[in-house]
Amino acid sequence: MRQIRTDLAMESFGHGGEGMPGVHVNHWEEMGVSLTEVVVETEEASRALGKAVGVYMTLECPAIRQRDLDARLAMANLLGEEMARMLPGEGEAPVLVIGLGNRRITPDSLGPQTIDRTLVTRHMFEQLPGFADERMRSVCALAPGVLGVTGIETMEMVEALVAKVRPRAILCVDSLAARAAGRIGTAIQLTDTGIQPGSGVGNHRRSLTRETLGVPVIAVGMPTVIYAATLTRDAMETLSPDTAEDDLDRVEQELLTGAQGEMVVTPREIDEIISDTAGVIATAVNRALQPDLSQEEIMAMMS
Amino acid sequence: MRQIRTDLAMESFGHGGEGMPGVHVNHWEEMGVSLTEVVVETEEASRALGKAVGVYMTLECPAIRQRDLDARLAMANLLGEEMARMLPGEGEAPVLVIGLGNRRITPDSLGPQTIDRTLVTRHMFEQLPGFADERMRSVCALAPGVLGVTGIETMEMVEALVAKVRPRAILCVDSLAARAAGRIGTAIQLTDTGIQPGSGVGNHRRSLTRETLGVPVIAVGMPTVIYAATLTRDAMETLSPDTAEDDLDRVEQELLTGAQGEMVVTPREIDEIISDTAGVIATAVNRALQPDLSQEEIMAMMS
Amino acid sequence: MRQIRTDLAMESFGHGGEGMPGVHVNHWEEMGVSLTEVVVETEEASRALGKAVGVYMTLECPAIRQRDLDARLAMANLLGEEMARMLPGEGEAPVLVIGLGNRRITPDSLGPQTIDRTLVTRHMFEQLPGFADERMRSVCALAPGVLGVTGIETMEMVEALVAKVRPRAILCVDSLAARAAGRIGTAIQLTDTGIQPGSGVGNHRRSLTRETLGVPVIAVGMPTVIYAATLTRDAMETLSPDTAEDDLDRVEQELLTGAQGEMVVTPREIDEIISDTAGVIATAVNRALQPDLSQEEIMAMMS
Amino acid sequence: MRQIRTDLAMESFGHGGEGMPGVHVNHWEEMGVSLTEVVVETEEASRALGKAVGVYMTLECPAIRQRDLDARLAMANLLGEEMARMLPGEGEAPVLVIGLGNRRITPDSLGPQTIDRTLVTRHMFEQLPGFADERMRSVCALAPGVLGVTGIETMEMVEALVAKVRPRAILCVDSLAARAAGRIGTAIQLTDTGIQPGSGVGNHRRSLTRETLGVPVIAVGMPTVIYAATLTRDAMETLSPDTAEDDLDRVEQELLTGAQGEMVVTPREIDEIISDTAGVIATAVNRALQPDLSQEEIMAMMS
Repeated sequence: MRQIRTDLAMESFGHGGEGMPGVHVNHWEEMGVSLTEVVVETEEASRALGKAVGVYMTLECPAIRQRDLDARLAMANLLGEEMARMLPGEGEAPVLVIGLGNRRITPDSLGPQTIDRTLVTRHMFEQLPGFADERMRSVCALAPGVLGVTGIETMEMVEALVAKVRPRAILCVDSLAARAAGRIGTAIQLTDTGIQPGSGVGNHRRSLTRETLGVPVIAVGMPTVIYAATLTRDAMETLSPDTAEDDLDRVEQELLTGAQGEMVVTPREIDEIISDTAGVIATAVNRALQPDLSQEEIMAMMS
Repeated sequence: MRQIRTDLAMESFGHGGEGMPGVHVNHWEEMGVSLTEVVVETEEASRALGKAVGVYMTLECPAIRQRDLDARLAMANLLGEEMARMLPGEGEAPVLVIGLGNRRITPDSLGPQTIDRTLVTRHMFEQLPGFADERMRSVCALAPGVLGVTGIETMEMVEALVAKVRPRAILCVDSLAARAAGRIGTAIQLTDTGIQPGSGVGNHRRSLTRETLGVPVIAVGMPTVIYAATLTRDAMETLSPDTAEDDLDRVEQELLTGAQGEMVVTPREIDEIISDTAGVIATAVNRALQPDLSQEEIMAMMS
Repeated sequence: MRQIRTDLAMESFGHGGEGMPGVHVNHWEEMGVSLTEVVVETEEASRALGKAVGVYMTLECPAIRQRDLDARLAMANLLGEEMARMLPGEGEAPVLVIGLGNRRITPDSLGPQTIDRTLVTRHMFEQLPGFADERMRSVCALAPGVLGVTGIETMEMVEALVAKVRPRAILCVDSLAARAAGRIGTAIQLTDTGIQPGSGVGNHRRSLTRETLGVPVIAVGMPTVIYAATLTRDAMETLSPDTAEDDLDRVEQELLTGAQGEMVVTPREIDEIISDTAGVIATAVNRALQPDLSQEEIMAMMS
Repeated sequence: MRQIRTDLAMESFGHGGEGMPGVHVNHWEEMGVSLTEVVVETEEASRALGKAVGVYMTLECPAIRQRDLDARLAMANLLGEEMARMLPGEGEAPVLVIGLGNRRITPDSLGPQTIDRTLVTRHMFEQLPGFADERMRSVCALAPGVLGVTGIETMEMVEALVAKVRPRAILCVDSLAARAAGRIGTAIQLTDTGIQPGSGVGNHRRSLTRETLGVPVIAVGMPTVIYAATLTRDAMETLSPDTAEDDLDRVEQELLTGAQGEMVVTPREIDEIISDTAGVIATAVNRALQPDLSQEEIMAMMS
């Protein structure tokens, strides 16, 4: 099976792919949000799809692009619930939230912008034990920056922190590449497989997974770009449905290796999309990690 | 002749277009920069190309995308010289520099970012006459913002200012849409035709020209986006050279009216490209408008 | 009477000043906010206080520095009501909101930051008449920047715009200097006297008043700085209550003319204070200018 | 001896203090920059001054506040030379540059802003061995953020990184508090004593020193604030030279514990001062850490 440059598991197979052995797909709708769960169960299916074995949940809601407040609230609530389900049960050890990506490159800044709005509490337990409410859970966060800015690989920095703070789980936030233009700013993927090499807008060099870090790694991300080559390929497929797969593959390959190879398609209003989605994801993170605090208490503590 | 969605006059005709009646095209190279001058001489040619009658100069230098310092300097020098040639001769009245576009939308922020680095001097003549060096020329500048932020049309604000400061010329800086991906961040266009309705990344609603404002209007801009539809069309043309023009037009049209209609292709590193080019254009503007000051004096006065 | 460097009318007289002829002072409390209305009625009182004839309303609420949400809401509501009372009755002509100050100098950026969150509607009436709800009032806004950046005086730019958009009133937002440290970030002053020369953090050069512009000018501002000289003088007065007035005046004068002359005292967290207060003032402005829209409608229209 | 709230060793004693046992002070001038070296040699002197045993070098040049280019260059050159002298000899292990402070609070953002302009190379040795020039030295950098944003103490994060990257030295950049207003933006202190608890604008909770981290720690910083209490005390001392020390101490103490306790005095143009000084310090850091690369090579590699 041909592998397509997308970070969304739900886009990694064609329409027939749902019936593929070792892959389970479920669709449903809730509060105006469309949810798709893809479970990759076998190594064979993993190789065929180019996606690690595990669970991939995608929540889609086109209305959030229109900045609809109800849609954003529904998205944040559902995402928070799914996140809470994937995270390991309670414990005293903190959850470490990692915001991947480059703050200075807008389509790669979703992770750092989400970290800015995440409630961190770990220091209160250590330094202000009287202030730390017993309903509060320990959370710490980091936007490790990018290699060219620090000279330190994200993986090294996360490993160093894991050795120091000994978290019970890691939650990574990242900007993704998608195949369908319509998913930019409207779809959020949540997975228990962590971060894989080559994925994300920044193209991570090494994996951040339970295997490499020794603790569960949940990853959440939103598509912010499409590769220009993929866009062109899919446009041609739509417009000339009778073009042979091989010809389409050749087109995509030629574009990828040509002058446009590194070109990404992104909406002009990407600044606004990133800012809005960082708000939705941070709200979900705060709810999932602080189940016993109200939204008002979380807001008050962040200010 | 088919009109293509590009703001660069040099891209508005095919290879045969150079021989078109009423259009003169010159190419030459200088200091590693490739210059193309397109002169649209007749109303007929204007209608055929979708470009106003006047002179369009494009300077191209791929090395500035690699952030080559020599290339940036060469570009700034040549652009400054051409700008000086297009501007009306000296006079006591100020030149008004207008930075079009939206500071908050990265690919549309070239104008405001250039204004930030333009040396303004008009207030020194009026308020610090002793401080104003006799070699200094009067310059004022404005980034009028966008309609949704001010409720005031750019044209209205410029008209109001023209009535107040009575400039001898206007210099507009804007982000453009191009046809060829390779021109983003590497080509700068200078024209004496001003700003036309529908042009630029922000799609201006009304024209800013000598006709509407009563003073010469020079416009300078760099492509920061390509319409996704255009990218796809051109990719298909390259890959299947035997596709009929009509089919390509149909493809582009379908894409423009589909979900991707508003999609623009922009490099991921657009933040950096805009910042670099604003520096190049501002250097050129400062040299063109202050021919008797050295680069060191200009820098010292801006700090 | 000694004149003190403060932009708050309520600080321009000592404890005995309330009984001064030609000045009326009222205090009351509402929703946890303390309100002080100073009415300067005669030219004589105006000269003595260094404040123009007119009404000055100050709303104080220390809790907003603790980022208390209820306090911010109460402040925004009361400020909006007082603003509505000062503004001239309805009409088709727009209200023009002016954000004074320099976006790049944090304590001077309250005006521009407020403009960013003001709902502008004027363009909808002109261009989208179908979209403009009949309950909507016409509003336009501008942050004119500062002289060193534009070469154009604020007064010139406002005059030019007034001639163009013919507003029925102007609302100016500015950063102020106060005398008491405790008022930074907690007090907001509203006045129908407009902006006076020498006032504000940026020290305006010319007045923006009904006399100079021909339409009512309402000004709203919050103290963001204290002059270091004033702080020292007042500290000395507190600590040595028996120091003669003349000695204190001499101290202040020596400090003002010394190396610290231009020094302002500002809390370290001024970035946060400005951002919060811009939100409070913009909420008040939007309510005062759009009395028939709900808070939800205003938010939806701004996104 | 009374201890004064300043981070500059040269301000921690009065005029008589230079003759104090265990303290050596040298003054000289070079290229328009005034240098003061304070060597605290004994534990006794350390306790008396409230400064750790070690060397403190201060470079002062009022002209850099006027943004004089020559002055900035002289400062960067001299600072780079002194830095190189304090750093341990060459080696393959990297130097780790730490930018302390809060990016969001202007007067506390000197460290993060300097990191943004520091050339990092460590990743090139590990991943692009062919690209790494043999003249290049290994450097990595981090702006660890602040506790309230990450939930992780700066000290913990630095310890974790030290264990991971095993640097041969650490160079910390921080915003300082000074006693004299004239030193804000004009004086830079360099010391081999690292960072002490309670120092800096952000008031660090734990020390970053050779003792706690196991490698040499050099600290460089510029004053960005003065405590309002100190300013007032010193103003009173200047104005009433016959006031008893005890009365002045009482004044400072009362102010520190009053409503103004946390107030800091900072120039209104602090945004600009921080940006300029970050440029000067980063230039010095890059020269000290890359002695075999030219300034042009460093600039080219950073772009």
